[in-house]
Amino acid sequence: MIQPFDDNYFMKQALNEANLAFNKGEIPIGAVVVHEFRVIARAHNLTETLNDVTAHAEMQAFTAAADFLGGKYLKECTLYVTLEPCVMCAGASYWTQLKKIVFGAKDERPRQEAINKRQLFHPKTEILGNIMEDDCKDLLQIFFEERRK
Amino acid sequence: MIQPFDDNYFMKQALNEANLAFNKGEIPIGAVVVHEFRVIARAHNLTETLNDVTAHAEMQAFTAAADFLGGKYLKECTLYVTLEPCVMCAGASYWTQLKKIVFGAKDERPRQEAINKRQLFHPKTEILGNIMEDDCKDLLQIFFEERRK
Repeated sequence: MIQPFDDNYFMKQALNEANLAFNKGEIPIGAVVVHEFRVIARAHNLTETLNDVTAHAEMQAFTAAADFLGGKYLKECTLYVTLEPCVMCAGASYWTQLKKIVFGAKDERPRQEAINKRQLFHPKTEILGNIMEDDCKDLLQIFFEERRK
Repeated sequence: MIQPFDDNYFMKQALNEANLAFNKGEIPIGAVVVHEFRVIARAHNLTETLNDVTAHAEMQAFTAAADFLGGKYLKECTLYVTLEPCVMCAGASYWTQLKKIVFGAKDERPRQEAINKRQLFHPKTEILGNIMEDDCKDLLQIFFEERRK
């Protein structure tokens, strides 16, 4: 069966957001929140622009999605994000009671690897990783290579 | 030596913020960020008012403090917060590179107890707990008792 709205479709939307971050000189991470096959929130990392280390794509997307739905919880929503969520964003997703998280690249920095992330997410939140992993990872690598020049 | 600006002094400021939350029907948690013995940010839990599970006192205080200082990092700052930070707020404090966290009541909910919080904070962040613990805890208990009625 043709499924136009599969995980790759929504991850591409998150990647579009990551590209917007890239073009602003921000670490290129993007996210969308999907509810009933519809994107209800889009966001990208804005930590430099907003001078705010908490302005991760996921945090903004959660706030925007809750605002859209008019309720605090995102129990029927899926987050698509180009990089595995950090501790802060995992902790935030716990409070939203998010149904599912689909991430692109795995965060392989030693500190991130050392932490048992599963324990930080809500037990009801399903986690699916490595969707369009190479595209998500490549964008980050290009960004950091350019920054080192 | 008389020290007018000790931990209790600043925790009282955080408790004032928690009381503001209480009066709005919010779970009463308050926080202040201190830089060179001066309160540069004050905030209280606003998750209900803002319909946003990420609107914890600490998150708002970090954003406000960074805005005040004009830099993203809070390396010379101390956070005073009436309840031990949750996973999200611990993760946010990591990104701020906060110098020190002083909290009031310990978060004794089973999930919070099960997580090794120390691992989530920045290794350079000093953690000091149980300052004015009874006052901080009493306010929370009164709130939840009233809500159960």
